[in-house]
Amino acid sequence: MAAPVAAPPRAAARDGDGDPPEPRRGSGAGPAGPAVPPAAPPAASRYAANIDDIRAAAARLAGHAHVTPVLTCSSIDKLAGRSLFFKCEVFQKGGAFKFRGAFNSVSLLSDEAARRGVATHSSGNHAAALALAAQLRGIPAHIVVPRDAPACKVDAARGYGGRVVLCDPTMAAREAACAEIVAATGATFVPPYDHGPVIAGQGTIALELLEQVPDLDAIVVPVSGGGMISGIALAAKSINPRCLVLAAEPRGANDAADAAASKARGERVCDAPKPETIADGLQARLGELTWPVIRDLVDEVITVSDDEIVDAMRLIMTRMKVVVEPSGAAGLAAALSPAFAASSPRAAAARRVGVILCGGNLDFDARRFWEGWAPAAL
Amino acid sequence: MAAPVAAPPRAAARDGDGDPPEPRRGSGAGPAGPAVPPAAPPAASRYAANIDDIRAAAARLAGHAHVTPVLTCSSIDKLAGRSLFFKCEVFQKGGAFKFRGAFNSVSLLSDEAARRGVATHSSGNHAAALALAAQLRGIPAHIVVPRDAPACKVDAARGYGGRVVLCDPTMAAREAACAEIVAATGATFVPPYDHGPVIAGQGTIALELLEQVPDLDAIVVPVSGGGMISGIALAAKSINPRCLVLAAEPRGANDAADAAASKARGERVCDAPKPETIADGLQARLGELTWPVIRDLVDEVITVSDDEIVDAMRLIMTRMKVVVEPSGAAGLAAALSPAFAASSPRAAAARRVGVILCGGNLDFDARRFWEGWAPAAL
Repeated sequence: MAAPVAAPPRAAARDGDGDPPEPRRGSGAGPAGPAVPPAAPPAASRYAANIDDIRAAAARLAGHAHVTPVLTCSSIDKLAGRSLFFKCEVFQKGGAFKFRGAFNSVSLLSDEAARRGVATHSSGNHAAALALAAQLRGIPAHIVVPRDAPACKVDAARGYGGRVVLCDPTMAAREAACAEIVAATGATFVPPYDHGPVIAGQGTIALELLEQVPDLDAIVVPVSGGGMISGIALAAKSINPRCLVLAAEPRGANDAADAAASKARGERVCDAPKPETIADGLQARLGELTWPVIRDLVDEVITVSDDEIVDAMRLIMTRMKVVVEPSGAAGLAAALSPAFAASSPRAAAARRVGVILCGGNLDFDARRFWEGWAPAAL
Repeated sequence: MAAPVAAPPRAAARDGDGDPPEPRRGSGAGPAGPAVPPAAPPAASRYAANIDDIRAAAARLAGHAHVTPVLTCSSIDKLAGRSLFFKCEVFQKGGAFKFRGAFNSVSLLSDEAARRGVATHSSGNHAAALALAAQLRGIPAHIVVPRDAPACKVDAARGYGGRVVLCDPTMAAREAACAEIVAATGATFVPPYDHGPVIAGQGTIALELLEQVPDLDAIVVPVSGGGMISGIALAAKSINPRCLVLAAEPRGANDAADAAASKARGERVCDAPKPETIADGLQARLGELTWPVIRDLVDEVITVSDDEIVDAMRLIMTRMKVVVEPSGAAGLAAALSPAFAASSPRAAAARRVGVILCGGNLDFDARRFWEGWAPAAL
């Protein structure tokens, strides 16, 4: 929603932050700790998108999506014991990273297909992002939203001209309602994450971040369906194979972290229930296209509790002065969790860590928010 | 608190925002509307600070204070009917602009004076800023804080090593307690606003803003004691005499806007009561040093209600994803108020308007906040 007037230039990473400058390693040098051979950059054909698709997406997004700023916060660095670089996708159009993948997908439609419009199902941010991308191209967007989605996200989709259809809060109901609309209108289905152009669009986050802060040891990325983290992993491992890509996943009250379970088992776990978590944007399950990327290129999955997420939200809002939704705070929750250092010696040794603040569409009026946020005040 | 990794470069004003670029006037061109002869730049000696003092302050602050980013928000622009450029001092060290003046003042102390420490009285942000500036120089800071100051601000002063002394919430009690400490310790009193080095430090906000967005028609600045707006007016009128400088002042439930009354009367009103307002940072009265600058260089004073301030807070937090305290939202409240266009034909004609988001130290746990913010949820 908010746009930086300036795109942070590559060279400025040393200048902007008033904190004492740290000794810098050469770009590409890995973290301290046990030496590990660089992973081979992903082959062009192995996955749903590759670095060329991501660079092409960046070219399409130029002048349409915001180059989001990177912020640092010395008081949070002290808590983390590392230097954290927050990629503020909360300032992206639509208030979340989703606009990148949605705009890239809509841009790739032929004029004829575009005229028939687009359709999707989403718990919120992808819905608003696709509605906005469609509005910018002047085509209709049919949006299936589960009834339990945050009101602010549904309102945003409507605000961008999306034709919103509410459905039951199950993936089956979402897919059925969406299929019906596609059959009736000829609209093109734009999946929320399991789609090459969406993955490529989200990957542009990493292109920007590694331009703004070239010598990161690790990037922490919230994971839901896996569109964002697979795009970021494909880009980051191509640019700097030594940069760790770490997933932050809510366990949920029902212990339903499917990315962690899938990585542990070495195959995609498809029977995990929907996680019961305050992070409404992190309740999808890994996709057929995102799983292979996560399997091969994501180094670790760090699971976090809702309490850790709320604590991270409070820190981001009170110390950084940035509004973040629960899903958007999961990355910091992971970076501050004991599980971060425990996940691997290389993670423990990571000094300079990128954290994706992926969304800021917080439903300030929702009782869930008030109760989760500051019970002292109620 | 949060620091941009990059300082927005002057040239980038056209690039960062994804909104369609607007036709740009040459730097220095005034707004449309009736032609008005440029005000003469302030003479070097007439006021407590001048442009040279402000440039010298900027040199002292370089590498210690953050160059805060400027954000734009197309949905808020639509509401305002103008292009607004938000100077995000919420991201300044200490979470407010106050660090600029405090650091400049502490930097100017001789080593011998510095050893005896500094002292001040403040309702919050100046307290934390002075404590931080003193901590950075390794000297003691004695901070007198009225009992009704927001807990988050008092905690911040303590967190930066400030020696906090609470007093009754009256200016007389604040000054008496501070004088006592100065007499006992030999500490140097650093006033919250009525002090040349403080005014010069706050003026650096305008140096940066007019570098980041050179061709502003107006700048809207919240006014309390007047340190920030006098510094900004001295800088802005020197750099671009055609740039309007507009004050945003809370009326308060008791209609106690002393800046508006003083401008109307042409002399400083000293008997106005403390305004009863949610904007806890805007309850001081104009000073002897700030009044002459405001009298001569501030074009208009726009008063706002607490409802307008709360509405502006909500917009900034929900649309821009930036956390702002009530005082920090007063500038947008003024920019969105009918009183803005009504204040003068030149204000009505202003197309590109800077708005200072001066502080983000919001007390999330305070009942006052929850009740004022979203009664729907309570």
